[in-house]
Amino acid sequence: MRALMISEPGGLETLSIAATTPPRPGRCQVLIRVEFAGLNFTDVLARRGAPGYADGWPFVPGMEVAGIVEAIGEEVDGLRVGERAVAFTYNGGGLAEYAIADAVLTCSIPDELDSAQAATIPLTWATAIGLVRRSHIGDGGTALVTSATGGVGQALASLLARHGVTRVVAASRAGKTAVAGTVPIVRDDRLTARAIEANEGQRFDAVFESIGGDTLASTLDALAPGGVLISYGAAAGQPDPEPPRYRTLRGQNVAISGFSILAMARTEPAAVRDLISSVIRLTAKGLVIPDPHQVSWSGLIASHLDQSEGVLRGKTVLAVKAHAS
Amino acid sequence: MRALMISEPGGLETLSIAATTPPRPGRCQVLIRVEFAGLNFTDVLARRGAPGYADGWPFVPGMEVAGIVEAIGEEVDGLRVGERAVAFTYNGGGLAEYAIADAVLTCSIPDELDSAQAATIPLTWATAIGLVRRSHIGDGGTALVTSATGGVGQALASLLARHGVTRVVAASRAGKTAVAGTVPIVRDDRLTARAIEANEGQRFDAVFESIGGDTLASTLDALAPGGVLISYGAAAGQPDPEPPRYRTLRGQNVAISGFSILAMARTEPAAVRDLISSVIRLTAKGLVIPDPHQVSWSGLIASHLDQSEGVLRGKTVLAVKAHAS
Repeated sequence: MRALMISEPGGLETLSIAATTPPRPGRCQVLIRVEFAGLNFTDVLARRGAPGYADGWPFVPGMEVAGIVEAIGEEVDGLRVGERAVAFTYNGGGLAEYAIADAVLTCSIPDELDSAQAATIPLTWATAIGLVRRSHIGDGGTALVTSATGGVGQALASLLARHGVTRVVAASRAGKTAVAGTVPIVRDDRLTARAIEANEGQRFDAVFESIGGDTLASTLDALAPGGVLISYGAAAGQPDPEPPRYRTLRGQNVAISGFSILAMARTEPAAVRDLISSVIRLTAKGLVIPDPHQVSWSGLIASHLDQSEGVLRGKTVLAVKAHAS
Repeated sequence: MRALMISEPGGLETLSIAATTPPRPGRCQVLIRVEFAGLNFTDVLARRGAPGYADGWPFVPGMEVAGIVEAIGEEVDGLRVGERAVAFTYNGGGLAEYAIADAVLTCSIPDELDSAQAATIPLTWATAIGLVRRSHIGDGGTALVTSATGGVGQALASLLARHGVTRVVAASRAGKTAVAGTVPIVRDDRLTARAIEANEGQRFDAVFESIGGDTLASTLDALAPGGVLISYGAAAGQPDPEPPRYRTLRGQNVAISGFSILAMARTEPAAVRDLISSVIRLTAKGLVIPDPHQVSWSGLIASHLDQSEGVLRGKTVLAVKAHAS
C-alpha cells in the first residue's frame, strides 16, 4: 500500500511516498481502508522529531482518518466490516491507504455525513469541542483565538459562535478569517492590545492559545477576571514562557489550563471518543463542517511543507483515491 | 464606639479594644450598626502587615458584618435606614460597633435569616460559592479540600455536597471534619497519597487549596485529567511553590486557577455582590448556614490569636452586644 513515510527525524528530504505492507489489526483494534486522512501540525512535529509524536522510525504520520472498516481484531464490539468510520490514529499511520486504529477511538459515520468532512472530526473538531468544554465559556462570554486560520482554529471559532459566545476575536498573520461572525485581527507583537480593542476595550473570558512562546506570554494579559487561558500547542517552536505565579493567578482571579488531545487519547481514550461522538451528534443538529481542501498523493508533500511553514489555510485532507492533481 | 484596633504591623501586642469615633458614610456607602462581625484569617494577615490587607495604621480589621443600616450616603439605591443588611467590608473596619460599607457590597437580610448566620455570608460563604463556581465541578465530580476546618473550608464542603459532587475529601490537621457527608483525612506530608486513597484510588476533578507552600506544590499531583487546582490562600505563610510549566499542564490536561474575593471586590464588586446574593437566595432554598460560634468583646483578642495559630475551629463571629463571656 502507499503511505507517507518519514525515514528519520529531519527536514523535507526525509519524506517520501513509499510502498509498504498493510498492517493487521491487533486486539481491540480495527483496520481502516482510508478514504480521506487529515493533515495536521502534529505530522510536522513528528517529522521534526519532537518528543511524543513518532514512536519509531521509519514513521507514517497522520492522526485522523475516515474510510471503510476493512478488518476487525479480537474483542471489538459495535463496529462491523464494510461500514464507514472515522478514527483518531494517535500513533500515526493515517496518511496511508490502510490504517490501524484503536476501536475505542473509532466511530461509525452516519449516512448523512460526507467522508471527507468526517475525516476532520477525530482530531481537529474533537480538539475544538474539547477546548470549548474545557473553557466552560457560556452564553455571553467573549473569546480570543490566537491562531484562527488552521483547522482547529476555524473549528473552534465556529463552535464558539454556535455556543452563544458574544464575540470571538480571531487572530491570524494576515488578519483575515474564514469563519463568519468572528472579528479578525492581525497577530503581531501588539496582539493583546489589538484583541482588547477589537473586544470594545474588554478583556476576555477565554483565550485559546496554540502559538506558544511570546504569544502565550503576552495573551495572559488579555484575560478578564474569572477568565481562563488554555494553551493547546506551541506552533512557533519557541520555548514555553514562565507560567504566572500562583500569587498572580489569585490577584487577577484567572486560570491557566493545558489541553492535549494526544495526551488525553493515551490516558483517557473514552473521553476522546466522547468528544468525537459529540461532534458527530452536532452534525445531526445542524453543525456544518466545511468541506476540507483535498490533495492527492502527488500534492501531499507540498501540503505538508505548507503546514510546516504555517501557510496551509483552512483544513486539508489527503484524498487517497483522487486522481493525480 | 468600640473597635478592635491594630496600632501597627506586628504581634498580638499591637491589638487592643479601643474607643474611637464612628465613621460617616461617603458617596455610594452606608453606615452599618454592627450586630455580628465575622473573624477571618484576613484579619491576621492585616495585623502581620501582609501587603494588600490594611490600607493604613492604626487599622480596624473585620471584613464581613451583619447589622442595621444606620445611615446612607449619597447615590445609594435599594437600601433603607433601619433594615438589616450584610456587607463585605473589604477595606476592614468590621470588628467595630459601626462599620462603613460600599453599597454595592451591602445586601438586605431576609426576615427568615438570623443575623449571626448572615454575618458569615459576605466573605466566608461568598468565597465558598465563588470557588465552587470557578471550579465548574458538576454532578458526579470529586473534590479535595485541603483545609476543611476553617469557615471557608466548611462552607465549601457543604456547598460541594449540595452541588451533587460524588465525594468530598476534607483534610485537616486532626483528620476530623464537622461537615456531614465528607471523607475526613489527616493533612500531613502524605496528604496527596491519603487523599487519593480516600477517593478509592482516583484523582480529583477539583482541588481547593488554601494552605500554600508544600501543600500547594504536592496537591497538583492529586488532579485527574481535566481537573483544576484552585489556590485561594497561603495560610502556612510559606512562599508559593513554582507553578507547573505550560508543557506539564498540556501533558496532564489540567488547569491551575487563583481565587481572591478581596481582589475581586476591588476590580469587579458587582461579581462579589452576585456571590453574596446567591448565597442568600440559597438559604431560602434550604441551604443551612451553621450557627457560628459567638465571642464577646472580652474574648475577641483570644479568638484572633486562635485564628492566627490555626486552632480556631469552624466559624466565629464577634457578637457586638453580647454580655462579657
